[in-house]
Amino acid sequence: MTEPEDLAARVAAGEARAVARLISWVEDGAPGLQDALEALPSPSAAYVIGLTGSPGVGKSTVTSALVGAYRARGKRVGVLAIDPSSPFTGGALLGDRIRMQEHATDTGVFIRSMASRGHLGGMAAATPQAARVLEAAGCDVVLIETVGVGQSEVDVAATADATVVLLAPGMGDGVQAAKAGILEVADIVCVNKADREGAEATARDVRQMLRLGSPVDGWEPLVVTSTAARGEVADLMSALDERRAWLDQGDRGRQRRRARAAAEILALAGGRARIQLAESLSSDVIDAVADGRLSSFAAADGLLTQR
Amino acid sequence: MTEPEDLAARVAAGEARAVARLISWVEDGAPGLQDALEALPSPSAAYVIGLTGSPGVGKSTVTSALVGAYRARGKRVGVLAIDPSSPFTGGALLGDRIRMQEHATDTGVFIRSMASRGHLGGMAAATPQAARVLEAAGCDVVLIETVGVGQSEVDVAATADATVVLLAPGMGDGVQAAKAGILEVADIVCVNKADREGAEATARDVRQMLRLGSPVDGWEPLVVTSTAARGEVADLMSALDERRAWLDQGDRGRQRRRARAAAEILALAGGRARIQLAESLSSDVIDAVADGRLSSFAAADGLLTQR
Repeated sequence: MTEPEDLAARVAAGEARAVARLISWVEDGAPGLQDALEALPSPSAAYVIGLTGSPGVGKSTVTSALVGAYRARGKRVGVLAIDPSSPFTGGALLGDRIRMQEHATDTGVFIRSMASRGHLGGMAAATPQAARVLEAAGCDVVLIETVGVGQSEVDVAATADATVVLLAPGMGDGVQAAKAGILEVADIVCVNKADREGAEATARDVRQMLRLGSPVDGWEPLVVTSTAARGEVADLMSALDERRAWLDQGDRGRQRRRARAAAEILALAGGRARIQLAESLSSDVIDAVADGRLSSFAAADGLLTQR
Repeated sequence: MTEPEDLAARVAAGEARAVARLISWVEDGAPGLQDALEALPSPSAAYVIGLTGSPGVGKSTVTSALVGAYRARGKRVGVLAIDPSSPFTGGALLGDRIRMQEHATDTGVFIRSMASRGHLGGMAAATPQAARVLEAAGCDVVLIETVGVGQSEVDVAATADATVVLLAPGMGDGVQAAKAGILEVADIVCVNKADREGAEATARDVRQMLRLGSPVDGWEPLVVTSTAARGEVADLMSALDERRAWLDQGDRGRQRRRARAAAEILALAGGRARIQLAESLSSDVIDAVADGRLSSFAAADGLLTQR
């Protein structure tokens, strides 16, 4: 059996297998997790970047190109690919991780995928924990790639220093992205596949729509284009640099860390509270609500006060 | 001021403005909501259908075609369009609701869109409440159209009697859908835009992938195609009929109502518990976690026991 403190020490030494193991613990909410995370060295200041967008926009390709760009600067990079825990993510469908294989033998790169659903507190708790593991292992940059455009992505955005929303011209244009509500979490919007027709038009639409929203914290989202399949991510890198420089001004970095800490604590406590509630919910109360004899509000009130 | 009981009575009489008002109450978690919902007549047995899928697959078009098909059978139909509460959903972007306008003057059709984020308990609680309002107003069928592929959609799926996952050929194929984890919530998968190349291939891929998963409750998901823009949804209607007949066997309908009741109670109680937790979380504890002096686990434990 692996001792939590041993595992933490091996992670801190940058041992790849220990990193993989501890991220599995995060994923499973394993018994030794709390002790292991508490034994990690205090967080340094990795740059945590979230990448999100609908299926098919080229998230993995962009991630891979960013890994290459940061490696060219001599940075150590961690990649965390978040897949919903689906019966379908057993392996075969992860074929596009193959694109990552050019980095697989690079000891300056850690690549892990993580399912989320088993974790107490969901992605809002699991993602910062996994990011902290990669940070403790010496990563200067942590890239978090998510699938989909739902609540998990909002949670990941709360974790990241920079959230990049990827779009592609021609499939789900800017209006569709706005409809799906993903623009609002963007610090940077990147229209990938810029060699295709309509990329500039999509970028223009998005700029226009972003003007309708009000900037959070005073940061105004940047809109750039990329052609990641050809490794062309220079504008995206510049935007990420600009965002980082902005975060380093004043106490913005600290405010961000505090918001992240609060979100993580509430996600963990909320997850535990929900388990306690589910355990206290009786079959009789469920029947009463299902049959219309009791309202769900009254049932919820009863559940909260009986504890 | 509108009295909750008056409003409930007007909803039960099928008054469109009262339906709109009470769904707004659900959306806002208005003070009179609980009383109004408790004053509604006991639920009859509307068929609640959830429609989900990535932006661009034609959800609104399919919804509109299904409204037409059910109206042709003489059914009263409610449509609930769920938009994430985005700064961008102010109105202009809802242009594709225009397609719905052919039904807008039909008194047998109620159409409402609903934002979710303000609601205590999130979509898991708001959706069944809004569905109940439409049901009480006399709808035989309630169509719930969601945007995106995240947790909200999973919550809506838990509410619905039939969950339809829409795909389109050529944009986000079956493999992408499986990656995004949305196939697992599908009772029916519908490949829309079947007049485009690749529709049959996508349907075949999906059938193959569904064979890898294990059916929930013994229902094996159906895979059909449609060309909703031309009103061609006959296969989808047959699949929906088959699903309904299946639910009517034995106590499946009752089991489904119980699962729904439990999910709604837990969502409401969990939402309230989370607000209580957030109110008890002190600035000192946030600082301690942000500075690495206290682990998030220990902070969460402290928060749960101090109450």
